[in-house]
Amino acid sequence: METPSPAVPAFDATFRRHLLDLLVWRRDVRHFRREALPKGTLARLIGLACLAPSVGLSQPWRFVQVDDSARRRAIRDNFEACNAAALQCQAGERAALYARLKLAGLDDAPCQFAVFADRATAQGHGLGRLTMPATIEYSAVMAVHTLWLAARAEGIGLGWVSILDPAAVEAALAVPAGWTFIGYFCLGYPQHCDDVPVLEREGWESRRAPDTVLLQR
Amino acid sequence: METPSPAVPAFDATFRRHLLDLLVWRRDVRHFRREALPKGTLARLIGLACLAPSVGLSQPWRFVQVDDSARRRAIRDNFEACNAAALQCQAGERAALYARLKLAGLDDAPCQFAVFADRATAQGHGLGRLTMPATIEYSAVMAVHTLWLAARAEGIGLGWVSILDPAAVEAALAVPAGWTFIGYFCLGYPQHCDDVPVLEREGWESRRAPDTVLLQR
Repeated sequence: METPSPAVPAFDATFRRHLLDLLVWRRDVRHFRREALPKGTLARLIGLACLAPSVGLSQPWRFVQVDDSARRRAIRDNFEACNAAALQCQAGERAALYARLKLAGLDDAPCQFAVFADRATAQGHGLGRLTMPATIEYSAVMAVHTLWLAARAEGIGLGWVSILDPAAVEAALAVPAGWTFIGYFCLGYPQHCDDVPVLEREGWESRRAPDTVLLQR
Repeated sequence: METPSPAVPAFDATFRRHLLDLLVWRRDVRHFRREALPKGTLARLIGLACLAPSVGLSQPWRFVQVDDSARRRAIRDNFEACNAAALQCQAGERAALYARLKLAGLDDAPCQFAVFADRATAQGHGLGRLTMPATIEYSAVMAVHTLWLAARAEGIGLGWVSILDPAAVEAALAVPAGWTFIGYFCLGYPQHCDDVPVLEREGWESRRAPDTVLLQR
């Protein structure tokens, strides 16, 4: 994935069908093989993520690769504490199911990183974000999503961990003050592939028909 | 783009090269041809957007297609007011450049829609968002980004308008209370294609090397 076409590319029906496959078979991966990714994988995927759109070309995404075992343990501990608190909000059978869902690949994923957004960046000169400062976070989210799709196209799975306390993560990873925590991510080869989200397979929730989310004005 | 593969798809190097092309040639389009999109295009693209990841499978994205001319005018008026205010924050030459950038395709784009996120949705049963409620907005942003890529693969351009006052947009479009405004979008055939962002072409900002946004911990 290193050399784009020199001329305006024409995307054909075959590409679009495979792109649909990519969207359909992308998953929030929770079960990883422990095998390491090839050296340089994350940096390469971040290079692709940097092609994402950003408000005012601010590129406010910040990636923090987490290899240190003490820092990983701090993240894991915080996940357990937050997950326990979340369980308090879920009653009975649903809570039991919730507990069974094994939401984190934190123990197995060979590559782990956090993503932040930097609202203080001078890049972009503030363009486009005066009335909507959260577009900085939204830009970082699109970088994550770009990385997610690019990884899946290489047979690599991503899992997004959001059951964390942002302040605890910021402290555990000693990031610059003022960065907004977007998420913590597990990256690695998935144990299996699926075209149905795990939460749907497990009976937690089902997807709705697209026409239910469209209003006309 | 209607029938995904029945078996686990194997993405090959050719697909990955075209995916790279897609990322490289996706643009925030400002200049549209006025020609209408084929009937049903937006609904079909929203169907693809609904394949995006969402926290707890909450699918909190809400799309509002805007066809009514009075509502479009209200959006345009609000853009002009917000853009004028933004210009006050930019001095001298930079302000002049900013004014020249013609940030909106609002006058020409045949298809326009707004996207919101519904934090109050019961779908997903609150899973994964107790400590990070903004993951609801992030999910809607990934749906937008999915639509953006799918559209570009069909030769259709998207432009994101963020220089708007969320409260004014919510009023102009009469959306349910409690929805968070994510952005207003112009969709149509682009006047031209490019692999360089317009803000870079115009000298507003340049993109940075990916290794500048990666920390090791």
